[in-house]
Amino acid sequence: MTAKKQPEKSEEETPEALTARKEEFSEWYHQIIKVADIIDQRYPLQGFLVYKPYGYEIFDRILRILEDMLAKTGHKKVYFPALIPERLLGKEASHIAGFHDQVFWVTKGGATDLAEHAALRPTSETVMYEMLHLWIRSWRDLPVKIHQSTTVWRYETKHTRPLIRDREIHWNETHTSHATAEEAVAQVKEGIRIYQDLFKALAIPAIWLSVADVFAGAESAVEPYTVLPDGRGLEMGSVNNLGQKFSKPFDVKFKRADGTEDFVYQTCYGVSERMLAAIVAVHGDDKGLVLPPEIAPIQVVIVPILFEKGKETVLEHARHLRDKLVQTGWRIHLDEREISAGAKFYDWELRGVPIRIEIGPRDIERKTVVVVRRDTGEKVAEIEGKIISRITSLLTEIQSSLLARADAYHKSKIAPAKSVKEIAAALKKGMIAQFAWCGDIKCAANTEKEVDAHFLGYEWSEKNVSDVCICGKPAVHTGYVGKTY
Amino acid sequence: MTAKKQPEKSEEETPEALTARKEEFSEWYHQIIKVADIIDQRYPLQGFLVYKPYGYEIFDRILRILEDMLAKTGHKKVYFPALIPERLLGKEASHIAGFHDQVFWVTKGGATDLAEHAALRPTSETVMYEMLHLWIRSWRDLPVKIHQSTTVWRYETKHTRPLIRDREIHWNETHTSHATAEEAVAQVKEGIRIYQDLFKALAIPAIWLSVADVFAGAESAVEPYTVLPDGRGLEMGSVNNLGQKFSKPFDVKFKRADGTEDFVYQTCYGVSERMLAAIVAVHGDDKGLVLPPEIAPIQVVIVPILFEKGKETVLEHARHLRDKLVQTGWRIHLDEREISAGAKFYDWELRGVPIRIEIGPRDIERKTVVVVRRDTGEKVAEIEGKIISRITSLLTEIQSSLLARADAYHKSKIAPAKSVKEIAAALKKGMIAQFAWCGDIKCAANTEKEVDAHFLGYEWSEKNVSDVCICGKPAVHTGYVGKTY
Repeated sequence: MTAKKQPEKSEEETPEALTARKEEFSEWYHQIIKVADIIDQRYPLQGFLVYKPYGYEIFDRILRILEDMLAKTGHKKVYFPALIPERLLGKEASHIAGFHDQVFWVTKGGATDLAEHAALRPTSETVMYEMLHLWIRSWRDLPVKIHQSTTVWRYETKHTRPLIRDREIHWNETHTSHATAEEAVAQVKEGIRIYQDLFKALAIPAIWLSVADVFAGAESAVEPYTVLPDGRGLEMGSVNNLGQKFSKPFDVKFKRADGTEDFVYQTCYGVSERMLAAIVAVHGDDKGLVLPPEIAPIQVVIVPILFEKGKETVLEHARHLRDKLVQTGWRIHLDEREISAGAKFYDWELRGVPIRIEIGPRDIERKTVVVVRRDTGEKVAEIEGKIISRITSLLTEIQSSLLARADAYHKSKIAPAKSVKEIAAALKKGMIAQFAWCGDIKCAANTEKEVDAHFLGYEWSEKNVSDVCICGKPAVHTGYVGKTY
Repeated sequence: MTAKKQPEKSEEETPEALTARKEEFSEWYHQIIKVADIIDQRYPLQGFLVYKPYGYEIFDRILRILEDMLAKTGHKKVYFPALIPERLLGKEASHIAGFHDQVFWVTKGGATDLAEHAALRPTSETVMYEMLHLWIRSWRDLPVKIHQSTTVWRYETKHTRPLIRDREIHWNETHTSHATAEEAVAQVKEGIRIYQDLFKALAIPAIWLSVADVFAGAESAVEPYTVLPDGRGLEMGSVNNLGQKFSKPFDVKFKRADGTEDFVYQTCYGVSERMLAAIVAVHGDDKGLVLPPEIAPIQVVIVPILFEKGKETVLEHARHLRDKLVQTGWRIHLDEREISAGAKFYDWELRGVPIRIEIGPRDIERKTVVVVRRDTGEKVAEIEGKIISRITSLLTEIQSSLLARADAYHKSKIAPAKSVKEIAAALKKGMIAQFAWCGDIKCAANTEKEVDAHFLGYEWSEKNVSDVCICGKPAVHTGYVGKTY
């Protein structure tokens, strides 16, 4: 890996401010993940990120929402080893072909050269299915639905980009085994539904695309894409129907009630830290992060407006308000730091706290507080007695309003196109293109070459397409072409 | 690493029963972690465990209790990379000496030989402090209290033992930085207090011992030991005062309010999967696990007693009871499997569920249910209307009774000794020995040799010792000698 030299402290001395505007997306993104305390990319190994407390708390909340959803739908949390003996990784031919050049190899233990090299898991199919061979014997053992939240490692040779293309990747991966192909198909739908619910909690819109060239070892795959402000499609995960592609080489067999035997039918699905990238990129603005209330580490921040006179009275009121609000179960923070109110406003706007409450001497006189929305900047005075119901309705309102805004924006980034020329024009305008597609992979490949972009896939949920493809043949799908990461 | 051959399915076909008695501790331990679905050690890499759903849920609950305690005391959750460039691992001289021969080395990415080898983290001091160098500038930034729940890897050359000595280890590690040596000392006390509270939730007794030969890079260390039934002391974690041993080589400096500079004073502490081993070993009995209610995945299992006649009525009652109990927030499971009630009793006893409720036709007539304690086997009939208050008091009662029982047992495993002969005798009886110690490390080393056991350390919390050491010199500490893992 490329070692970076030790970063200089002076680098840190530069003001921690967001100076880029969101229009300059790439620069803005790199600044915001740093100054809003999401990650630190100065760790001296390329593609290996340090998650700072604020960033990790957001990601942890995402994981907990997902894990709760998985638990409610009968998925069990497990842990499987991070190291994979080379022989195991090679059991499924196309899988090893897809990953062999992308894995980190452990070759030594202390000073000893290891007899068999081990890969750091790039994904856990081979690790898990080796054990499922032992766990599954009869139809009574099925389905098996397991998942883990871990890191995986991939020796990316492409340009790395924090939270988008890293060499150490945080994700949750789920693996299921079933008695019939139909059950596996139904499971794919459940997986998609879970992720759709999750993305709703993040207020992130996504289009679900069936993949034309599926991942190493899968039969079919569906991937959620969200279009970022720079017009690139960000793949946030994947849901794969593996059929019997792995169960055969790994000999994961089961006995039916009638005594016949078959290999299990499997699915796997995962979502990654890219969700965090999406939250930053989709909702953020020139002032910083804008966090959906469901995942915000702090949902309401209280900033006391202090003057020399009556300082203690205001603080007392603010503390009283904090204690009252905390009891509702929301995540409340009272900022008592000895810096100016303006500096606090700046800080919490940068960190995307959904609601700010200001309370000063005049508010106390009037028995009101000032409530400010981070997403719209809207500022209203509310009487103290009604603050709980106001906050309750505002948090719901902000959550749905963020999703609606993101949805509208997302639609505006997808251009219907009738020809290769129109596709090229859409890409130029920073959009992805949607077009009627004949279903021929060669047609997709040609288009990719002509417009220098990727064929992302075709709509997963569509019913009937009665149109003509850009190549002139009858269309059967709605395809998408766009720049990606 | 030693590759194991692919396990045979036939191995799995053998009955999944606990046949060993707890007296045969080693055999019992290996059986129970397998048949109670804690872990699977058949993954084909020595020292790498698969956590099964039931085992992982117990461990996950332990972590969540700990993480909540850490959050409440101002510790922030983070994530730091798993790979450490060789140069970084080598920055603190005694640290590298302690770990260099124990780490797994990543030397290749795909087919490329890496310019600098990277170690899989055996612990994260070097990873974190490289970044703290950048994060900490002034006294305003202090204290920094961060933690992460991850896995670490150590190329153990000793005999591995599941959950006790593995090559992939699950743990939580905390790292703190302070402006003064006094604050670091106070932080050590907070760390110990947190772990004491955690062990209380696990109903695991522990003696806290100051370590004579501290871990690579620490100034002083305190370790919690619990004595297992085979008479060995199990070290469940450690709390270390690092002083400035790392902050100097890593140049973690801060500016005081008066403009002077100093290196920060650091502590680190961690607890591992060995807590899970302790829970299994300390509380379990001939029938299986006995789980403290606070961490039991299922706290109450309802087993309907079904006859052909009136089956639906009983099930209806059982479901109604389940729904009523679920609302209290307890973790309740109704076992509706189509196997005999006896088989269900066996299963849930094996898995250590604290309370079993039986409900049959006669109970329904009498408007009662039967309540059975896992820890004592005690069986009482309770009238339906009082079931919630009965369960509430029973869960509390079981939790404290398990701790009291474990405490009494633990005390019985520690023998006061006045001479080397008495120490040897204690060890022979499967105990650890406690003795007045002069504080001389050579005396401890001599004793170790004479009795072929380890000097574990000396009591951390003791006030004054006015006694004579086994070597004849005046004693200053209460020392402990025992077999370890």
